Amino acid sequence: MRILGIDPGSHITGYGIIEKKGNYFRHILHGEIKPKKDSPLSATLIYVYQQLSAVISETAPQAIALENIFYGKNVRSLIKQAQVRGVVIFAGADKGLNVFEYSPLEIKKAVVGYGRAEKRQVQVMVKAILKLPELPPADAADALATAICHANFLKENPI
Amino acid sequence: MRILGIDPGSHITGYGIIEKKGNYFRHILHGEIKPKKDSPLSATLIYVYQQLSAVISETAPQAIALENIFYGKNVRSLIKQAQVRGVVIFAGADKGLNVFEYSPLEIKKAVVGYGRAEKRQVQVMVKAILKLPELPPADAADALATAICHANFLKENPI
Repeated sequence: MRILGIDPGSHITGYGIIEKKGNYFRHILHGEIKPKKDSPLSATLIYVYQQLSAVISETAPQAIALENIFYGKNVRSLIKQAQVRGVVIFAGADKGLNVFEYSPLEIKKAVVGYGRAEKRQVQVMVKAILKLPELPPADAADALATAICHANFLKENPI
Repeated sequence: MRILGIDPGSHITGYGIIEKKGNYFRHILHGEIKPKKDSPLSATLIYVYQQLSAVISETAPQAIALENIFYGKNVRSLIKQAQVRGVVIFAGADKGLNVFEYSPLEIKKAVVGYGRAEKRQVQVMVKAILKLPELPPADAADALATAICHANFLKENPI
Protein backbone atom coordinates (compact mmCIF):
# COMPACT_ATOMS: atom_id res chain seq x y z
CA MET A 1 0.00 0.00 0.00
CA ARG A 2 1.34 3.37 -1.02
CA ILE A 3 0.55 6.38 1.19
CA LEU A 4 1.10 10.08 0.64
CA GLY A 5 1.55 12.03 3.87
CA ILE A 6 1.11 15.80 3.65
CA ASP A 7 1.88 18.56 6.13
CA PRO A 8 0.12 21.65 4.75
CA GLY A 9 1.51 24.87 6.15
CA SER A 10 0.78 28.56 5.76
CA HIS A 11 4.17 28.78 4.05
CA ILE A 12 5.79 25.36 3.41
CA THR A 13 3.80 22.22 2.56
CA GLY A 14 5.77 19.04 3.22
CA TYR A 15 4.98 15.76 1.50
CA GLY A 16 6.28 12.22 1.71
CA ILE A 17 5.35 8.96 0.03
CA ILE A 18 6.00 5.55 1.55
CA GLU A 19 5.02 2.03 0.66
CA LYS A 20 4.13 -0.63 3.20
CA LYS A 21 4.60 -4.28 2.33
CA GLY A 22 3.93 -6.52 5.34
CA ASN A 23 5.94 -4.97 8.16
CA TYR A 24 8.41 -3.38 5.82
CA PHE A 25 8.40 0.30 4.86
CA ARG A 26 9.87 1.56 1.65
CA HIS A 27 10.63 5.23 1.13
CA ILE A 28 9.49 6.48 -2.29
CA LEU A 29 9.87 10.25 -2.28
CA HIS A 30 9.71 13.31 -0.09
CA GLY A 31 9.97 17.04 -0.54
CA GLU A 32 8.66 20.46 0.35
CA ILE A 33 6.45 22.76 -1.68
CA LYS A 34 7.65 26.32 -1.11
CA PRO A 35 5.65 29.06 -2.81
CA LYS A 36 7.51 32.37 -3.02
CA LYS A 37 7.17 34.16 0.32
CA ASP A 38 5.71 37.29 -1.20
CA SER A 39 3.38 35.65 -3.71
CA PRO A 40 -0.34 36.47 -3.48
CA LEU A 41 -2.62 33.91 -1.83
CA SER A 42 -4.25 32.88 -5.11
CA ALA A 43 -0.84 32.21 -6.71
CA THR A 44 0.20 30.20 -3.63
CA LEU A 45 -2.94 28.05 -3.81
CA ILE A 46 -2.47 27.37 -7.53
CA TYR A 47 1.22 26.54 -7.00
CA VAL A 48 0.49 24.10 -4.15
CA TYR A 49 -2.28 22.45 -6.20
CA GLN A 50 -0.08 22.05 -9.27
CA GLN A 51 2.95 20.72 -7.39
CA LEU A 52 0.84 18.30 -5.39
CA SER A 53 -1.01 17.09 -8.48
CA ALA A 54 2.35 16.39 -10.13
CA VAL A 55 3.52 14.41 -7.06
CA ILE A 56 0.28 12.38 -7.09
CA SER A 57 0.58 11.63 -10.81
CA GLU A 58 4.22 10.67 -10.46
CA THR A 59 3.90 8.43 -7.40
CA ALA A 60 0.31 7.09 -7.65
CA PRO A 61 -0.51 6.83 -3.92
CA GLN A 62 -3.62 4.92 -2.78
CA ALA A 63 -4.45 7.16 0.18
CA ILE A 64 -3.56 10.51 1.70
CA ALA A 65 -2.85 11.18 5.37
CA LEU A 66 -2.86 14.63 6.98
CA GLU A 67 -2.22 16.01 10.42
CA ASN A 68 -5.16 17.63 12.20
CA ILE A 69 -4.87 21.34 11.94
CA PHE A 70 -3.01 22.93 14.83
CA TYR A 71 -5.13 25.36 16.86
CA GLY A 72 -2.44 27.00 18.99
CA LYS A 73 -1.07 29.47 16.50
CA ASN A 74 -2.15 33.02 15.69
CA VAL A 75 -5.42 33.38 13.79
CA ARG A 76 -3.92 34.94 10.66
CA SER A 77 -1.56 32.06 10.01
CA LEU A 78 -4.24 29.55 11.06
CA ILE A 79 -6.56 30.93 8.37
CA LYS A 80 -3.82 30.88 5.74
CA GLN A 81 -2.91 27.31 6.68
CA ALA A 82 -6.57 26.22 6.55
CA GLN A 83 -6.99 27.78 3.09
CA VAL A 84 -3.96 25.86 1.81
CA ARG A 85 -5.24 22.73 3.54
CA GLY A 86 -8.63 23.03 1.81
CA VAL A 87 -6.91 23.05 -1.58
CA VAL A 88 -4.66 20.12 -0.55
CA ILE A 89 -7.69 18.02 0.46
CA PHE A 90 -9.50 19.06 -2.73
CA ALA A 91 -6.48 18.11 -4.89
CA GLY A 92 -6.40 14.60 -3.42
CA ALA A 93 -10.14 13.99 -3.24
CA ASP A 94 -10.63 15.25 -6.78
CA LYS A 95 -8.28 12.48 -7.93
CA GLY A 96 -10.43 9.90 -6.14
CA LEU A 97 -8.13 9.44 -3.14
CA ASN A 98 -9.43 9.03 0.39
CA VAL A 99 -7.99 11.54 2.85
CA PHE A 100 -7.40 10.50 6.47
CA GLU A 101 -6.61 12.71 9.42
CA TYR A 102 -4.47 12.06 12.50
CA SER A 103 -3.71 14.12 15.59
CA PRO A 104 -0.13 15.30 16.26
CA LEU A 105 -0.19 12.95 19.29
CA GLU A 106 -1.04 9.91 17.16
CA ILE A 107 1.63 10.80 14.60
CA LYS A 108 4.41 11.32 17.13
CA LYS A 109 3.45 8.13 18.95
CA ALA A 110 3.61 6.23 15.68
CA VAL A 111 7.20 7.20 14.96
CA VAL A 112 8.84 8.23 18.24
CA GLY A 113 6.78 6.17 20.68
CA TYR A 114 5.49 9.05 22.75
CA GLY A 115 3.29 12.01 21.94
CA ARG A 116 5.32 14.97 23.13
CA ALA A 117 8.38 14.41 20.95
CA GLU A 118 10.32 17.34 19.49
CA LYS A 119 10.50 18.04 15.76
CA ARG A 120 14.14 16.90 15.69
CA GLN A 121 13.25 13.50 17.22
CA VAL A 122 10.61 13.01 14.51
CA GLN A 123 13.25 13.72 11.84
CA VAL A 124 15.72 11.29 13.45
CA MET A 125 13.16 8.48 13.80
CA VAL A 126 11.77 8.93 10.30
CA LYS A 127 15.33 8.73 8.95
CA ALA A 128 15.89 5.49 10.91
CA ILE A 129 12.53 3.85 10.06
CA LEU A 130 12.89 4.58 6.34
CA LYS A 131 16.69 4.03 6.26
CA LEU A 132 17.29 7.43 4.66
CA PRO A 133 20.86 8.54 3.97
CA GLU A 134 20.25 11.87 5.73
CA LEU A 135 17.75 13.75 7.90
CA PRO A 136 14.73 14.84 5.86
CA PRO A 137 13.80 18.54 6.24
CA ALA A 138 11.35 19.18 9.09
CA ASP A 139 8.12 19.56 7.11
CA ALA A 140 8.89 16.61 4.84
CA ALA A 141 9.72 14.54 7.96
CA ASP A 142 6.32 15.44 9.47
CA ALA A 143 4.65 14.37 6.23
CA LEU A 144 6.54 11.06 6.15
CA ALA A 145 5.66 10.51 9.84
CA THR A 146 1.99 11.11 9.00
CA ALA A 147 2.18 8.52 6.21
CA ILE A 148 3.84 6.00 8.58
CA CYS A 149 1.11 6.74 11.14
CA HIS A 150 -1.61 5.93 8.62
CA ALA A 151 0.21 2.76 7.54
CA ASN A 152 0.12 1.60 11.18
CA PHE A 153 -3.37 2.70 12.20
CA LEU A 154 -5.30 2.49 8.93
CA LYS A 155 -8.30 4.48 10.15
CA GLU A 156 -11.47 3.50 8.36
CA ASN A 157 -13.28 6.80 7.95
CA PRO A 158 -11.87 9.34 5.53
CA ILE A 159 -12.66 13.02 6.00
CA MET B 1 -17.88 44.82 -16.07
CA ARG B 2 -19.22 41.59 -14.67
CA ILE B 3 -18.39 40.70 -11.05
CA LEU B 4 -18.93 37.49 -9.10
CA GLY B 5 -19.33 38.07 -5.37
CA ILE B 6 -18.88 35.04 -3.13
CA ASP B 7 -19.60 34.52 0.56
CA PRO B 8 -17.85 31.24 1.45
CA GLY B 9 -19.20 29.66 4.62
CA SER B 10 -18.46 26.58 6.67
CA HIS B 11 -21.89 25.34 5.55
CA ILE B 12 -23.52 27.55 2.89
CA THR B 13 -21.57 29.41 0.20
CA GLY B 14 -23.53 32.28 -1.31
CA TYR B 15 -22.79 33.71 -4.75
CA GLY B 16 -24.11 36.57 -6.83
CA ILE B 17 -23.21 38.00 -10.22
CA ILE B 18 -23.83 41.60 -11.22
CA GLU B 19 -22.87 43.72 -14.16
CA LYS B 20 -21.94 47.38 -13.93
CA LYS B 21 -22.41 49.66 -16.93
CA GLY B 22 -21.70 53.28 -16.08
CA ASN B 23 -23.65 53.92 -12.89
CA TYR B 24 -26.18 51.24 -13.63
CA PHE B 25 -26.19 47.79 -12.00
CA ARG B 26 -27.71 44.77 -13.66
CA HIS B 27 -28.47 41.61 -11.68
CA ILE B 28 -27.39 38.47 -13.52
CA LEU B 29 -27.76 35.56 -11.10
CA HIS B 30 -27.54 34.62 -7.45
CA GLY B 31 -27.81 31.48 -5.41
CA GLU B 32 -26.47 29.41 -2.55
CA ILE B 33 -24.29 26.31 -2.68
CA LYS B 34 -25.44 23.96 0.06
CA PRO B 35 -23.46 20.76 0.49
CA LYS B 36 -25.29 18.08 2.49
CA LYS B 37 -24.88 18.86 6.18
CA ASP B 38 -23.42 15.44 7.01
CA SER B 39 -21.16 15.09 3.98
CA PRO B 40 -17.44 14.57 4.62
CA LEU B 41 -15.15 17.58 4.20
CA SER B 42 -13.58 16.24 0.99
CA ALA B 43 -17.02 15.78 -0.61
CA THR B 44 -18.02 19.30 0.50
CA LEU B 45 -14.90 20.81 -1.08
CA ILE B 46 -15.44 18.95 -4.36
CA TYR B 47 -19.12 19.97 -4.42
CA VAL B 48 -18.36 23.66 -3.82
CA TYR B 49 -15.63 23.59 -6.48
CA GLN B 50 -17.88 21.96 -9.07
CA GLN B 51 -20.89 24.20 -8.41
CA LEU B 52 -18.76 27.32 -8.47
CA SER B 53 -16.96 26.26 -11.64
CA ALA B 54 -20.35 25.77 -13.30
CA VAL B 55 -21.47 29.25 -12.19
CA ILE B 56 -18.24 30.77 -13.56
CA SER B 57 -18.60 28.96 -16.91
CA GLU B 58 -22.25 29.96 -17.18
CA THR B 59 -21.89 33.63 -16.28
CA ALA B 60 -18.30 34.47 -17.39
CA PRO B 61 -17.42 37.07 -14.71
CA GLN B 62 -14.30 39.23 -15.10
CA ALA B 63 -13.41 39.41 -11.41
CA ILE B 64 -14.27 37.80 -8.09
CA ALA B 65 -14.91 39.65 -4.83
CA LEU B 66 -14.86 38.04 -1.37
CA GLU B 67 -15.44 39.19 2.16
CA ASN B 68 -12.47 39.03 4.53
CA ILE B 69 -12.75 36.01 6.70
CA PHE B 70 -14.57 36.67 9.97
CA TYR B 71 -12.41 36.09 13.06
CA GLY B 72 -15.04 36.20 15.77
CA LYS B 73 -16.45 32.70 15.46
CA ASN B 74 -15.34 29.48 17.09
CA VAL B 75 -12.11 27.97 15.81
CA ARG B 76 -13.64 24.76 14.43
CA SER B 77 -16.02 26.57 12.13
CA LEU B 78 -13.35 29.17 11.28
CA ILE B 79 -11.06 26.37 10.07
CA LYS B 80 -13.85 24.74 8.05
CA GLN B 81 -14.75 28.09 6.50
CA ALA B 82 -11.11 28.83 5.65
CA GLN B 83 -10.74 25.41 3.99
CA VAL B 84 -13.80 26.09 1.81
CA ARG B 85 -12.50 29.60 1.12
CA GLY B 86 -9.16 28.23 -0.06
CA VAL B 87 -10.92 26.06 -2.63
CA VAL B 88 -13.15 28.99 -3.67
CA ILE B 89 -10.13 31.22 -4.29
CA PHE B 90 -8.37 28.38 -6.11
CA ALA B 91 -11.41 27.73 -8.32
CA GLY B 92 -11.50 31.36 -9.44
CA ALA B 93 -7.76 31.93 -9.75
CA ASP B 94 -7.33 28.68 -11.67
CA LYS B 95 -9.70 30.09 -14.30
CA GLY B 96 -7.53 33.20 -14.60
CA LEU B 97 -9.79 35.50 -12.56
CA ASN B 98 -8.42 38.06 -10.13
CA VAL B 99 -9.81 37.73 -6.60
CA PHE B 100 -10.34 40.85 -4.49
CA GLU B 101 -11.06 41.05 -0.79
CA TYR B 102 -13.16 43.54 1.20
CA SER B 103 -13.86 43.92 4.90
CA PRO B 104 -17.43 43.48 6.22
CA LEU B 105 -17.32 47.21 7.04
CA GLU B 106 -16.51 48.19 3.45
CA ILE B 107 -19.22 45.88 2.09
CA LYS B 108 -21.95 47.13 4.42
CA LYS B 109 -20.97 50.74 3.78
CA ALA B 110 -21.20 50.12 0.03
CA VAL B 111 -24.81 48.93 0.16
CA VAL B 112 -26.38 50.25 3.37
CA GLY B 113 -24.30 53.37 3.92
CA TYR B 114 -22.94 52.48 7.32
CA GLY B 115 -20.75 49.69 8.57
CA ARG B 116 -22.74 48.15 11.39
CA ALA B 117 -25.84 47.24 9.40
CA GLU B 118 -27.81 44.05 10.19
CA LYS B 119 -28.05 41.13 7.76
CA ARG B 120 -31.68 42.00 7.03
CA GLN B 121 -30.78 45.57 6.01
CA VAL B 122 -28.20 44.21 3.58
CA GLN B 123 -30.88 41.99 2.01
CA VAL B 124 -33.33 44.90 1.73
CA MET B 125 -30.77 47.26 0.17
CA VAL B 126 -29.43 44.65 -2.25
CA LYS B 127 -33.03 43.98 -3.36
CA ALA B 128 -33.54 47.72 -3.93
CA ILE B 129 -30.22 48.41 -5.67
CA LEU B 130 -30.63 45.48 -8.06
CA LYS B 131 -34.44 45.87 -8.42
CA LEU B 132 -35.05 42.24 -7.46
CA PRO B 133 -38.65 40.97 -7.23
CA GLU B 134 -37.99 39.53 -3.75
CA LEU B 135 -35.44 39.46 -0.92
CA PRO B 136 -32.45 37.30 -1.83
CA PRO B 137 -31.51 34.70 0.82
CA ALA B 138 -29.01 36.01 3.38
CA ASP B 139 -25.81 34.40 2.05
CA ALA B 140 -26.62 35.23 -1.57
CA ALA B 141 -27.41 38.83 -0.49
CA ASP B 142 -24.00 39.07 1.18
CA ALA B 143 -22.38 37.80 -2.01
CA LEU B 144 -24.27 40.33 -4.16
CA ALA B 145 -23.34 43.09 -1.69
CA THR B 146 -19.69 42.08 -2.00
CA ALA B 147 -19.93 42.27 -5.80
CA ILE B 148 -21.56 45.73 -5.55
CA CYS B 149 -18.79 46.80 -3.17
CA HIS B 150 -16.11 45.78 -5.66
CA ALA B 151 -17.97 47.53 -8.49
CA ASN B 152 -17.82 50.76 -6.44
CA PHE B 153 -14.31 50.55 -5.00
CA LEU B 154 -12.43 48.59 -7.68
CA LYS B 155 -9.41 47.80 -5.53
CA GLU B 156 -6.25 47.41 -7.57
CA ASN B 157 -4.45 44.59 -5.80
CA PRO B 158 -5.91 41.10 -6.02
CA ILE B 159 -5.07 38.58 -3.31
